[in-house]
Amino acid sequence: MTTIRDVAKKAGVSVATVSRFLNGSGYVSADAAKAVTDAVDELKYELNPVARSLNTKQSHLIGLIVPDITNPFFPELARAVEDVALTYGYTVILCNSDENPEKERNYLETLKKKYIAGFIVTSNQLDAPHYANMALPIVALDRAINDRIPTVSSNNREGAVMGTQALLQRGCKDILFLRGPEKLNPANDRFEGFMEAITESGVNYHIVTCPFHFADSEKIVEGFLKEHKEIDGIFASSDVSAAGALKAAVTLGIQVPAELQIVGFDGIAMGEMLSPGLTTIAQDVYKMGAIATRVLIKRIENQEIEQHFYEVPVQLKLRGTTRSVEK
Amino acid sequence: MTTIRDVAKKAGVSVATVSRFLNGSGYVSADAAKAVTDAVDELKYELNPVARSLNTKQSHLIGLIVPDITNPFFPELARAVEDVALTYGYTVILCNSDENPEKERNYLETLKKKYIAGFIVTSNQLDAPHYANMALPIVALDRAINDRIPTVSSNNREGAVMGTQALLQRGCKDILFLRGPEKLNPANDRFEGFMEAITESGVNYHIVTCPFHFADSEKIVEGFLKEHKEIDGIFASSDVSAAGALKAAVTLGIQVPAELQIVGFDGIAMGEMLSPGLTTIAQDVYKMGAIATRVLIKRIENQEIEQHFYEVPVQLKLRGTTRSVEK
Repeated sequence: MTTIRDVAKKAGVSVATVSRFLNGSGYVSADAAKAVTDAVDELKYELNPVARSLNTKQSHLIGLIVPDITNPFFPELARAVEDVALTYGYTVILCNSDENPEKERNYLETLKKKYIAGFIVTSNQLDAPHYANMALPIVALDRAINDRIPTVSSNNREGAVMGTQALLQRGCKDILFLRGPEKLNPANDRFEGFMEAITESGVNYHIVTCPFHFADSEKIVEGFLKEHKEIDGIFASSDVSAAGALKAAVTLGIQVPAELQIVGFDGIAMGEMLSPGLTTIAQDVYKMGAIATRVLIKRIENQEIEQHFYEVPVQLKLRGTTRSVEK
Repeated sequence: MTTIRDVAKKAGVSVATVSRFLNGSGYVSADAAKAVTDAVDELKYELNPVARSLNTKQSHLIGLIVPDITNPFFPELARAVEDVALTYGYTVILCNSDENPEKERNYLETLKKKYIAGFIVTSNQLDAPHYANMALPIVALDRAINDRIPTVSSNNREGAVMGTQALLQRGCKDILFLRGPEKLNPANDRFEGFMEAITESGVNYHIVTCPFHFADSEKIVEGFLKEHKEIDGIFASSDVSAAGALKAAVTLGIQVPAELQIVGFDGIAMGEMLSPGLTTIAQDVYKMGAIATRVLIKRIENQEIEQHFYEVPVQLKLRGTTRSVEK
């Protein structure tokens, strides 16, 4: 195997010079740099990456912390992070936190010892000391903001305005809003968007809080629709909640979209598989993951980042749970 | 910071002894082992894991290679792998291969340089030289077998027999089987199970090859049902294909399950969200991932493994796309 000594000999410089150059840890003349580069090429010298991480305290590993990869929102995010990371020579460690601060802290500690280069985090714990005091680069995805941590999220508020208006333009006169968990920033932004649009319209509405969970949503909506037969539109803060609402309507024999129109929020693949297909406010999840990874790598490599808050536009995707716009 | 010298001093042994003990690289007397353990505890000496991986050529990193994490089968697998790995002090690197041998090879090379401890692989490339000649421990998941590589998969053949019999017992007289991609072992095992059960029954059947993809399956089934109005049962080799078949039936105004019964294969979460809910042969994906991880860690740690082939039982999950059994 080729060693650093072979490289030094070939390049006609000292081992210390080769080391300084390869680790970027001190001054090397332009001539020496050229000679070392040529020698590395010619001898096909491979840096030992573990030895390098000892020297540079850097491993080219990125930690991706998500609440639960089995939640259909996160696989596409993970996919984007890995695709972009690979392009820049980084690999991704997957961490499921279950929103448990203890588990998050353990991951941070374990991975810091492996000289992890940085973290992309989807968490409600961003204000917790284990994130706030972290020296490593970190980017927040989807949820929550701390002034020092760059954040990438969807335009949730505007999306909710769009979703509400989609129901209003299609003649809904009594709308049920399925509000997401109150501790989640994106859910609260969607709630505010709904309130803005519905208040302006003067149309009748109801609000029910509902977890981002199919079976729970189905049960809650079934109970509510039994008591409120006047409801002709449902705007759900997530696609799985919307799927639960649709199933409840089918069970109660309510025709969708003739008697009841439904709009979801997320744009996950499952939406098109439902009958009728789910109209939804689609997030560009892949783009969110890609931007977050690019921002993180820039921070790791000490490059300037243009902004601290990235808002990715959402899009109304019309399918079968809504009718045509009324003239 | 506490060094190995401090530990040696406290324990009253040489630095070499401490090193031998901590790296498990040679004989240490029971008394010395006890003294070192106590000293490590007392001084809260933390091994530097990157330095350790240089010595032991081991990083406690596991590579998980899947075709595409956004395919709904894999997130639950990834979740199981990570849960079990964490229990044993390992972390998981996520790799999407897109079934591309070049990408797989690149990942193997890159991660070997990081002294990855082993791989869990879902691939159709297991016979390819980059896997066959690998010195590192490896476990195959879901697909394909090579005699030297331990494999964990579902009992696909038996599951297909169960699914076919479920349709037969419910009165189906003309069954369409949606066969999966012919290069996939699990798909072929399901095909064989279907053939076994249908041949024995003497009932009329058709076979159409169909990718594990929703929109493609929808289109293929819609075309087929238009030409074959006699079909009263569909057994799909995957849940996404079954979802496509259900959507096609709804589009054509065919009543499910009154006129047409449908059974899928997989047991992914989406199945319950459909209307009617999808009857399916459910794989225990979490269990498969957990067993594979346990087997891999045993191999990494040079422990005996009991067997080379693990077959995890599947289960018939009855929902709304099938009727009650006919008396």
